[in-house]
Order: sequence, then structure tokens, then C-alpha cells
Amino acid sequence: MSASITIYGAGSWGTALAVHLAQSGRSVTLWARRSDQARAIRENRYNDEYLPGIEIPADVRVTSDLKEAAQASNLWALAVPSQQLRSFVMSLKPLIRPDIVVVSLAKGIENDSLMTMSQVLEDVLVPQLDRSRIGVLYGPSHAEEVAEGRPTTVVAAAHSPAVAEEIQEAFMTDRLRVYANTDVIGVEIGGSAKNVLAIAAGISDGVGYGDNAKAALVTRGIAEIKRLGLALGAKSMTFAGLAGIGDLVVTCMSQHSRNRGLGEQIGAGKKLEEALADMHMVAEGVKTTQSIHDLAQRHHIEMPITEAVYEVLFNDRRPHEMMEKLMTRSAKRENWLPEVLQER
Amino acid sequence: MSASITIYGAGSWGTALAVHLAQSGRSVTLWARRSDQARAIRENRYNDEYLPGIEIPADVRVTSDLKEAAQASNLWALAVPSQQLRSFVMSLKPLIRPDIVVVSLAKGIENDSLMTMSQVLEDVLVPQLDRSRIGVLYGPSHAEEVAEGRPTTVVAAAHSPAVAEEIQEAFMTDRLRVYANTDVIGVEIGGSAKNVLAIAAGISDGVGYGDNAKAALVTRGIAEIKRLGLALGAKSMTFAGLAGIGDLVVTCMSQHSRNRGLGEQIGAGKKLEEALADMHMVAEGVKTTQSIHDLAQRHHIEMPITEAVYEVLFNDRRPHEMMEKLMTRSAKRENWLPEVLQER
Repeated sequence: MSASITIYGAGSWGTALAVHLAQSGRSVTLWARRSDQARAIRENRYNDEYLPGIEIPADVRVTSDLKEAAQASNLWALAVPSQQLRSFVMSLKPLIRPDIVVVSLAKGIENDSLMTMSQVLEDVLVPQLDRSRIGVLYGPSHAEEVAEGRPTTVVAAAHSPAVAEEIQEAFMTDRLRVYANTDVIGVEIGGSAKNVLAIAAGISDGVGYGDNAKAALVTRGIAEIKRLGLALGAKSMTFAGLAGIGDLVVTCMSQHSRNRGLGEQIGAGKKLEEALADMHMVAEGVKTTQSIHDLAQRHHIEMPITEAVYEVLFNDRRPHEMMEKLMTRSAKRENWLPEVLQER
Repeated sequence: MSASITIYGAGSWGTALAVHLAQSGRSVTLWARRSDQARAIRENRYNDEYLPGIEIPADVRVTSDLKEAAQASNLWALAVPSQQLRSFVMSLKPLIRPDIVVVSLAKGIENDSLMTMSQVLEDVLVPQLDRSRIGVLYGPSHAEEVAEGRPTTVVAAAHSPAVAEEIQEAFMTDRLRVYANTDVIGVEIGGSAKNVLAIAAGISDGVGYGDNAKAALVTRGIAEIKRLGLALGAKSMTFAGLAGIGDLVVTCMSQHSRNRGLGEQIGAGKKLEEALADMHMVAEGVKTTQSIHDLAQRHHIEMPITEAVYEVLFNDRRPHEMMEKLMTRSAKRENWLPEVLQER
């Protein structure tokens, strides 16, 4: 077990993990971007802004000093927004050491490069850090529940089995079960694209559709995510696992999901800017929609649900019309169901 | 399009389908077991007991006369509880004609014979009816939503592609999209076993676990259902479709599900008898748990979630203990995840 972990980013997920790992006997350093935020957490032992109601154990070291955070451990977990990962890691780069393992907790695809988070990390950190020492920790894990110690399962993915197991050991507790996987791209595509589907599920709720429609969206959703993943070299079985169907289910059906909530507001008629203005946290799915849409185009993959969300978010198409199209007419010509199923 | 349909059984699902199909221009006959129920529906145009708040169109013919119902159409849809299907079809047998198509809407496995619904129908009706003329209509379809005309997708399964398409045509509307499938056993196992998983999801909720745990249960659940299905000759892809993951998701996550609700009460400490006494509708999952458990034993299939539900329902094991075992310790030795995932 890696005794020490540094978590960069004191949003809800970074804070929740810090709380849970500290309670499980790890030595945890939590880095917050703003010094006033770090000070407030240090003094009050609460992160009211991002994880209200959860006490942060006294032994979680909270700092906004990057050097202090970097020296505190050789396992670095990055919980910053996906589109800021590159610039953040650039600032960390001078502090890198060859024995570090870097794990992205951020889920998403970088907008312009269309790189996954591990690819961004490689792009910035290699050759100072060996590629094998980069991984991700993804899976169905609402922050609040992890902070409360409710049972949760996640996937640690790295190209090297040994590093995947190192990450697994570092995060594994009685309540947080970690499975190791070497299909990094599969885990990343599953874990990122589900946020697009979550917006779709929210739009479906917002236009007044019910659980039956959402079940159809989830079923079709995992099929289109898998199509993209396979085109990028992922393994099929990963999409049947926690970072595939597991994460998709919880994100689409849960009341906790920010992306689903955003979609619901948009389905009910709000403009994207209005809906975003009402949130003080990042809904990763908006940026991810753009990236997944672009990836699908680049690789010529049919992703009708992603396409529909993209049209609603960025091209002002009416939510009701796009959902109607998905659920009724277009179903006739789509090949989203297993080959044994055909609609006339 | 088959112009006429007879629905046997005026519970919530039978009634909801009758309402929706009548509104879509079908000639529908709804058979109710009790003559007082049939009269009440005929006179008030509401089925207050099973589908409150939904008006039943004037052109739905409601009767408790079996002969009248049988003569009204050559498509018979059976919406009676699964454990009563055999005795009910025995009473229909004298009225069978060779041009009839019989479709089970009931989901479940008969307790003693361990037969699926289509197998029970075959057992009773063949050779008076050709085996090819028997099918099922399953999928993620909460009755209330179908009655309200909310978009829904289901699967029509029959051994004969032509009959599957006949059923598809009969039920297909703008809001109810029907996909044809010839993997009858796969659709039946998926559609039935999900009720066991729904109880498991409810127990998880009842003991205070959250959405993260439920996501893990759903992920593992579809894997164990598929294992059983494959042993019985089902096609793998069916479990990635509407009667597999689609139906599982909606049943486990939705507030509508009676089986999930029953599990929640049991997870919170109620005895099975108490929980059942509080419901006036059938929670199919209880009987199905027994059958799926027995099927798994007969075919030597590892189904840890089904086993846990069985132990809680029938062997007085503590819900918390069984859930704890599923989510933590036993995960180490289970082989439920894709082969690329391993827990140390």
C-alpha cells in the first residue's frame, strides 16, 4: 500500500477522495488552487463550496503550495477540470521525478487535440516520466457517496499491469473496491463519453419523457460509445464493466449527476449559457460533447445520440425535435441494436 | 398491421397496453378475470385498482367472458401473473385456433417446471397450435408511461422471424417502438431475471447503500444473467439489448418498480411476508428469484447476486450482511468482471 497520496484539486471529487483515503489510514495531501480556499479548509475542516456537510479529517494536509504538494508523495492524483489538465500539468512538470505515478481523476477529452487525459499527460510529461507510469481512476463514483463511505467500485487503468496494481493498492479500501485494467483507452472513452449520454438522459427528462425512454437511451448509448472505443483500439469487454455500463447507468439515472441535471434544464427550454450560469461547478459533459462529436467525425463512427446532444447544445436545435427523432423515426434505419434485432 | 388484439388480464400492464393500442387505432378487447372488475371498467372507463388516473377509451371492449375475448381477435396477449399462466392457458386451450398468435406479456419462470413463459405456452398449446406461433413481448416498459404515451421501446421475440414481425406490427405505434428478435430464450431470461436484480437493487437502497453500489450491482448483474442465458442457449448480444441491459437499468433505478420497492422494504428490515402483505399487486421477482436460483443450480452457473437475494428472501439471512459480502469481501474471488479486470 502506497502510504502517501497527493490529490491536486479540491473540487468535490478530489475532496471526497481525500476524506475517504485519510479515514482509511492513508497520508493525504490535498492541493487547492486558491490559497484562500486552502486556508478556509485548513481552518474550518469543511469544503463548503464543493462538498458541503462533510468533515475533512485533521490529518489531511491542505495546501496551495505546488512544491509542498509535489514533494509530499510519489502518487499524484489529478482532480482538475479536463480542459485545464494540460496547463496544470505544465506547471507540475518542473517538479516531476521518475519514481512518480500520475493518475488522472479528471474525465474528458481535450477539445482541440482530441486527446484523452492519459494522452495529455503523456504529451506533457514524457520523456521526463516513463509512459508506463501514467494512469486513470474512473468508474461509477459520486463524490458525496465516497465521502460518506458508501460502497463504491472503480477501475484503475494503466498500460503497465504493475502500475495499474500500484494505483489499485493505493486507492483500495474496505468501501472503495478498485479493479485493475490495462485497457486505458477503453476506460477513458467509457468514462468520458458517459457524460454526453448523461446530458442526453437529462434532455429526455426535461422534455417530459420517462424512464422507458431513458432505458432505450442507455441501451443505445453504450452501443455507440463502444463503437467509438473499438475504433480507437479499446477492448470490447471494458464497456461491459464499471467504466462502461456501470458508470453510464449511475450517471444517467442518478439525481446527483450535474451533467444529467444540466441536460434536464436544457430539455425544459433553457439556453446552454443560462444553464451553465446557474452552476458553479463544471459540467464536464458540455466540453466532452464537442470532443466526442469531433472524434466520431474523424473516425467516421455513427453516434446518433452524441450528434443529437451536439445539435441541441451548439446548433440551437430544439430538444424536443431531436429527442423525437432519436426515439421514433431514426430508429428505423439505425444499426444500434444487436444484429439479431431488426425493426421493419 | 393486425387490426385486432385481445389482451387477457386487466392488471396495470394489460390495461396500459389496451389504452395505448386503442388510442393508436387498434381494435382492442381487454379481458378481466372478475366480472365485477370488467363491469366497473366498462361503466367508469377507469381501472382504479391497477392503473389509477388513466382513462380507458370507449372503444376498448372490456369483458370477463373468455369465449368473447378469444373470438375477438387472432392475436392473444397474455398479461396474467407468471405463476398463473399455465392454469390460465389451460382454460383458453379449448378456444385455440390454428391461426392464433399467442404472446406472453408475463415475465417470469414457472416455479416447479423451471420453464419460461413461452415454454409453458408450448407445453400446453402444442400441437393444437404450432410452436412457431408463440412469442413474448418484453423490454423496459413501465405501464404508467406507456399508458401516458411516453416513448417506449420493447422487443417482440418468436422462433419464427415471420411471427416475430407479425407481433412487431401488431404492437408498433409512434410511441411504442417494437424490435423483432428470434432469440426467445435470451429475451425471456433477460426480462425475467432483471426482477431478481431489481430486488437486489432495492435491498441495497434499503440498507443505506447509494447509487455507486447500485451501479456495481447492475454491472455484475447483467454479467450473471448473461452467464445463465448462455448456458440455456441464448445469444450473447441479446443481453446488450432492450430485454437485457435496457430492462435491467430501468427496473433497478426507477422509483416505479414494484420489485425494487419490495427489496427496499426488506433491506430496511421488513420480513418478506410483511412486505408482500403491503402490496396488492404481484412482485414477480419473488417467485422469479426462486426459479432463477434453481435454474442456476441445475446448470451450475455462479449467480452471486441472485444467491444473495435468495438467502435474504427465503433463508432469513440479514440483508446488510449479504450486501456487505457482495460488495466487499467476495468481490476478491469472483469472476464477474471482464477478463481484463482483476482484483488482487
